Amino acid sequence: MEADLRALIRDIPDFPEPGIVFKDITPLLGDGNAFRRVIDTFVERYRPSAPTQIAGIEARGFMFAAPVAFALDAGLVPIRKPGKLPSDVEKEIYELEYGTDILEVHKDAVREGDKVLVLDDVLATGGTAAAACRLLRRLGAEVLAVAVLVELEFLGGRDRLPDVEVLSLVTYDGS
Amino acid sequence: MEADLRALIRDIPDFPEPGIVFKDITPLLGDGNAFRRVIDTFVERYRPSAPTQIAGIEARGFMFAAPVAFALDAGLVPIRKPGKLPSDVEKEIYELEYGTDILEVHKDAVREGDKVLVLDDVLATGGTAAAACRLLRRLGAEVLAVAVLVELEFLGGRDRLPDVEVLSLVTYDGS
Repeated sequence: MEADLRALIRDIPDFPEPGIVFKDITPLLGDGNAFRRVIDTFVERYRPSAPTQIAGIEARGFMFAAPVAFALDAGLVPIRKPGKLPSDVEKEIYELEYGTDILEVHKDAVREGDKVLVLDDVLATGGTAAAACRLLRRLGAEVLAVAVLVELEFLGGRDRLPDVEVLSLVTYDGS
Repeated sequence: MEADLRALIRDIPDFPEPGIVFKDITPLLGDGNAFRRVIDTFVERYRPSAPTQIAGIEARGFMFAAPVAFALDAGLVPIRKPGKLPSDVEKEIYELEYGTDILEVHKDAVREGDKVLVLDDVLATGGTAAAACRLLRRLGAEVLAVAVLVELEFLGGRDRLPDVEVLSLVTYDGS
């Protein structure tokens, strides 16, 4: 399956800034059959773990978290950039290569004992996914796994997630 | 069903600014059963129209568009704020109460003859949904309908969408 999916992900050089090669997943999203297979793969893999919630990281993470939540009858938990969630939030400030970023989740979105699967489109340096896991654990949830469509292996994101299962469907080694 | 869903949508006064009462749908998203029923309703209603793509308006629209696309084996088309889509885009500038806003879609996301369903969380003044419809039609697509979870009837959004079917599951009349 990986080769079929890889054929639907295109490189966009110098986006969002010079020197970065962006992995554009929109051709895959636009292919109903491929998108369905991606979601089915996540659903089949994590159905046995019976997640109570699926957390999606803004904004492309919502595109994967929502259908997995739907298919597993689980709740959908948006993890968002600052100022987007209207009620009381738990915040996590984390470091980027240059500067810092912030993620927020509603404090009442998960409870002690919940089992949460975290979904995003791409795992790059792992900073965002690690921040999402810390947020959810601080609210008492167990993080079952971090699952992504694309992993940029050469950025070492897995190393920042030593204490959680990481699943990716398409990997790039940077060569 | 409407009363059950309404009970899971909460008012947040003065968000995002003083005088606005924000409809917070996160309790509904977090309720796996309610979220499933919302998606099932959209899916059952539009399955007979056989949409080729489901367009979601950034960012909460992705949470509805993605599972409907999954369930109908249709492609998912993100309609985004400026600068987020990496390839060639079609742009639509539209007026807000104060100032203007911009939506973008990839030019290769839809083709002449495609039948697209547009999904978002809330229909307010209708400006954003109308802009999304114009974008998709400019690329040659037929817009089957605009479907939303919440309609703020007192803002008259339907009046800005005279040429398309509008479906909402929960309406507020402003009283």
